Amino acid sequence: MLKPVPLTDVKLTDDFWAPRLETNRTVTIPHAFKECEDTGRIRNFEIAAGQAEGEFEGIYFNDSDVHKMIEAIALDLALHPDPALDQRLDRLIAILAAAQQPDGYLNSYYTLVEPENRWTDLPVKHELYIAGHLFEAAVAHYQATGKRSLLGVATRFADYIDSVFGDDRLVGVCGHEEIELALVKLAEATGEQRYFRLAQWFIDRRGSSDREYCQDHLSVREQSEVVGHAVRAMYLYCAMADIAMRTRDEGLIGALNRLWEDLTLRRMYVTGGVGPSAHNEGFTTAYDLPNDTAYAETCAAIGLVLWSWRMFLLHGRSEYVDVLERALYNGVISGVSLTGDRFFYVNPLASRGQHHRQPWFGCACCPPNIMRLFPQIGAMMYATAVGGSRAAPTTSNDAPAVVGAERALPAVLYVNLYAASEATVQLSGTAVRLTQSTHYPWSGEVKITVRPASEVEFDLRLRIPDWCETASAKVDGEELDAERGEDGYVSLCRTWRPGDTVTLKLDIPIRRIAAHPQVAADVGRVALMRGPLVYCLEAADNEGSVRDMALPRKADLKPEWHPDLLGGVIVLRGKGLRRAQDDRPDLYRPVPDDLKTDATAIPYYAWDHRGPGEMVVWIPEITALADDRGTEEG
Amino acid sequence: MLKPVPLTDVKLTDDFWAPRLETNRTVTIPHAFKECEDTGRIRNFEIAAGQAEGEFEGIYFNDSDVHKMIEAIALDLALHPDPALDQRLDRLIAILAAAQQPDGYLNSYYTLVEPENRWTDLPVKHELYIAGHLFEAAVAHYQATGKRSLLGVATRFADYIDSVFGDDRLVGVCGHEEIELALVKLAEATGEQRYFRLAQWFIDRRGSSDREYCQDHLSVREQSEVVGHAVRAMYLYCAMADIAMRTRDEGLIGALNRLWEDLTLRRMYVTGGVGPSAHNEGFTTAYDLPNDTAYAETCAAIGLVLWSWRMFLLHGRSEYVDVLERALYNGVISGVSLTGDRFFYVNPLASRGQHHRQPWFGCACCPPNIMRLFPQIGAMMYATAVGGSRAAPTTSNDAPAVVGAERALPAVLYVNLYAASEATVQLSGTAVRLTQSTHYPWSGEVKITVRPASEVEFDLRLRIPDWCETASAKVDGEELDAERGEDGYVSLCRTWRPGDTVTLKLDIPIRRIAAHPQVAADVGRVALMRGPLVYCLEAADNEGSVRDMALPRKADLKPEWHPDLLGGVIVLRGKGLRRAQDDRPDLYRPVPDDLKTDATAIPYYAWDHRGPGEMVVWIPEITALADDRGTEEG
Repeated sequence: MLKPVPLTDVKLTDDFWAPRLETNRTVTIPHAFKECEDTGRIRNFEIAAGQAEGEFEGIYFNDSDVHKMIEAIALDLALHPDPALDQRLDRLIAILAAAQQPDGYLNSYYTLVEPENRWTDLPVKHELYIAGHLFEAAVAHYQATGKRSLLGVATRFADYIDSVFGDDRLVGVCGHEEIELALVKLAEATGEQRYFRLAQWFIDRRGSSDREYCQDHLSVREQSEVVGHAVRAMYLYCAMADIAMRTRDEGLIGALNRLWEDLTLRRMYVTGGVGPSAHNEGFTTAYDLPNDTAYAETCAAIGLVLWSWRMFLLHGRSEYVDVLERALYNGVISGVSLTGDRFFYVNPLASRGQHHRQPWFGCACCPPNIMRLFPQIGAMMYATAVGGSRAAPTTSNDAPAVVGAERALPAVLYVNLYAASEATVQLSGTAVRLTQSTHYPWSGEVKITVRPASEVEFDLRLRIPDWCETASAKVDGEELDAERGEDGYVSLCRTWRPGDTVTLKLDIPIRRIAAHPQVAADVGRVALMRGPLVYCLEAADNEGSVRDMALPRKADLKPEWHPDLLGGVIVLRGKGLRRAQDDRPDLYRPVPDDLKTDATAIPYYAWDHRGPGEMVVWIPEITALADDRGTEEG
Repeated sequence: MLKPVPLTDVKLTDDFWAPRLETNRTVTIPHAFKECEDTGRIRNFEIAAGQAEGEFEGIYFNDSDVHKMIEAIALDLALHPDPALDQRLDRLIAILAAAQQPDGYLNSYYTLVEPENRWTDLPVKHELYIAGHLFEAAVAHYQATGKRSLLGVATRFADYIDSVFGDDRLVGVCGHEEIELALVKLAEATGEQRYFRLAQWFIDRRGSSDREYCQDHLSVREQSEVVGHAVRAMYLYCAMADIAMRTRDEGLIGALNRLWEDLTLRRMYVTGGVGPSAHNEGFTTAYDLPNDTAYAETCAAIGLVLWSWRMFLLHGRSEYVDVLERALYNGVISGVSLTGDRFFYVNPLASRGQHHRQPWFGCACCPPNIMRLFPQIGAMMYATAVGGSRAAPTTSNDAPAVVGAERALPAVLYVNLYAASEATVQLSGTAVRLTQSTHYPWSGEVKITVRPASEVEFDLRLRIPDWCETASAKVDGEELDAERGEDGYVSLCRTWRPGDTVTLKLDIPIRRIAAHPQVAADVGRVALMRGPLVYCLEAADNEGSVRDMALPRKADLKPEWHPDLLGGVIVLRGKGLRRAQDDRPDLYRPVPDDLKTDATAIPYYAWDHRGPGEMVVWIPEITALADDRGTEEG
């Protein structure tokens, strides 16, 4: 099993993520705390605790937003100690503890509204989902502060849930998966294996109904098609992977591999958004990826990041990090404004100008999900394995090899994400400091200085992203073989000395991307990418309209750095075509002329910051015309 | 009011329609008669008449299919006497007469299944709709044969309905409009004005609920937006126009004009299909015209023909016949196979090869609707007005002028549709024989020989279709001004002598059509038309696949006559591009090359005759590229 690096051991110092984490800490978290107060989300607990008068307010799953916010704050405290915030969290946790019932049950909705009906509506009422988010919050709080205040609440609740469900006393599964992955975390943090077994039990119970909506239509080991509510699906697959990487359960691994293939080959937006339909907040049919009506909930993209990360830990292959990076840089961060206080719940890939970020939502799952993801990004930059070789990691479709069985091999350090940062990782008992200097994602040049406490041999594996066709690597000026290995990494296995410097150059051209021809919405269209970033045309840069624009196949596009635009972005500029303005009302008319126009594309994540206006990711493309004389024109 | 020409006074002799009418008579009608027998549709009446044992079989509105078949047979008998068929119809009518209840009620479902519940579920159960189709059948039968057998059944039923609803005794409207237009026909055929008043009453009662689905959400005079079930909408507008042309009711005319504009500028497929959604068999939002999932029910296109015809009679303008012709040559006749025994209920504008005509349907509205339309096509070629001038006809948005007030002006003969044919029309008391020689719709050249019984002055108005940019007209070799008048017609006002020959040349190029830019489904795509015909690419002519094809803007397309293909068609041939085959499964990949390919388009109506295969109407277009050097390439 690959080992992640604790989030406290990585410090982002870059211009891309570090400011976002700072905004998350200083704007988003206070904003969300206020919203949780203003909307009664915290008062619900106070009433349940007998500390306030009133009635339950809001939606029956509102507790979960508070739990997720606590988790976010705790993760943030781990990175950035803040005694005032720590104490504020203590006060909030005290309310939760007071609201906990004598038997360990904690759910303000059921306690206040229908106490007699616990566990009677598992498919709909999110009771176990809410518990799961409490467990995740408790683990984060414990790991960040060492305090057991919330962890005690969580374990009492988990013990109670185990007493209700365990040993088939009550057979049922939650309509919204979450508790499963949370129980694995709780087991890991407490060493209590009963929680892990309960997670397995919940996973194994699925398939008892015909409800595709919550992935309860088939035994998880029989599932091959990604169906239903997208966030639920992602959280289920996370838990399956959590269990599989610990048990090497071949049935689970096979299902995970099939589901991964189904998702990434047939059901994922180019932004890493997943779940095209508002109808079920989820999946439809293969290749159904409409742009204007894309649902692509922010939480679902976050769920994909979480699942991708676990698939990487399970298989040690870069293809999972490729997807993680795709979602992270595009469909996830589009979900929050640069100012940190406005959110997309839905992330369409085209807009007529009517879709805008909102300060909060009645169903407010997305903002705290963003909040709790940001502090975890540093921890996804690296992973280690205690020993391995080029041949050892499993391929995703084969039975797993037992990594770590060959002790003699050097330890492995995976470098997954690139960003200016400082980190310390433990390799073969030696602390290794790693300093990344880079302007990634704007530049593909990355300098990594390796400073082991003492000389140590290990296999430094540098991820060559799927979008990169040409890469070179030097160590202390010496050109090395930068061939991407079968697992997607360049392997630099050597004895590392303090101050050794790796220079990785990833070629980072502007790329035109086509979708699979079965994706009807994208036929004849291209998306522009540079590095991990998906670009879009937005009206603000393009004379007020972009839905009438097209790109010639061979039109040159050039990157331009704009430090003062949208927090600092590289825009792509070139010549496009614009359908001649034609105000006639006719439904059918002669084909209008196309006129030359300047085209400017910005990173997708940064759209909707400059007032209402059209936006498109997939741009009609005008291909070169091979004419009758056999020459290529255009 | 413009006056139609009786269908018996026009005889089609052409290669396009005459064979279709013959197939309709010799294949479709017998096929449908057998289906009506085999599916219990006729036995239901026999059981209700006490002539057979058993229970009602099928859907509660199945009577209407029999009524529509009777109408079709009657119209056909008018054109083509057939004593055997006439007698068979007499026997069927005798069964209906026997099934009629003593009070005049006739509906086999209610009589057999829930006799106590008459008129209790008007929104859903189609009771008045079914009656309406009976009335239309009865009028057609009476006019074709002079027999009053079915007309008596109809008037007894209509009298009974009037006694139930008239003078607000029961206030309600049918969920599926039809009776309103049928009552106008019945009033016209019998001279009984009560029926006309009842039709007005049903029209005026609408708007009593919030049911957009059946256009009952607003008073008809307040309606501006085409909503709900498409066939219902078309039939309602037909009745509104029937009443408006007789009463010159300005409120109705205003509503009709607004609804017409909404339909034809925002909600109509290029094929004349209407109603994009399967969900409500009807309308959605403006410009929502998806191709693969287009519902575009055959009955709705027929309904549009019927409404267009009435709008023409109301306003005397060619724009209505333009739409009539568009629907007729494309979205209507696509509904029946060339063999006459297979039917589309749904007429998509793109297919992956899974959509095929069927022999019959459980809900079998479409086949008999086609059957009853074909015999009426000849009657839509001409219309007359007792007097008028260039200025006299109303424009569609102004208050109506009273046509016919200026007796001194010569009579007007409108020539709307072009097809080889013989006709006799009455103009100022003189019978005028008209012979059209043409290969329309394949050719735009039309020779019309005028043979009045004696010299007579009249204003011959030749419709210049909206698709024709250049036309010329000669009379006996003398070139005349062929300027399209404000009403869309070339006016040739003169004293006509026997043998005068008009030669009309309509320029008939291959046209590339764009959709309004708001039609998301058609952005970057073109449709090909030639004359009134919409073309499509079908796999059978294009190496087995067409969804990967594109057309360069300037690629030459040439018409080619293929007498043995699909009943004889002009195909369009040229060079297209085909996206290079790329079997990789990747969802996102580099843009593939485009390869030259031959492209062959066939008329849309003729698709799905050569086995399953892809089809597209809207083809991605590759526009000419204006490059940086300012030259046009491509």
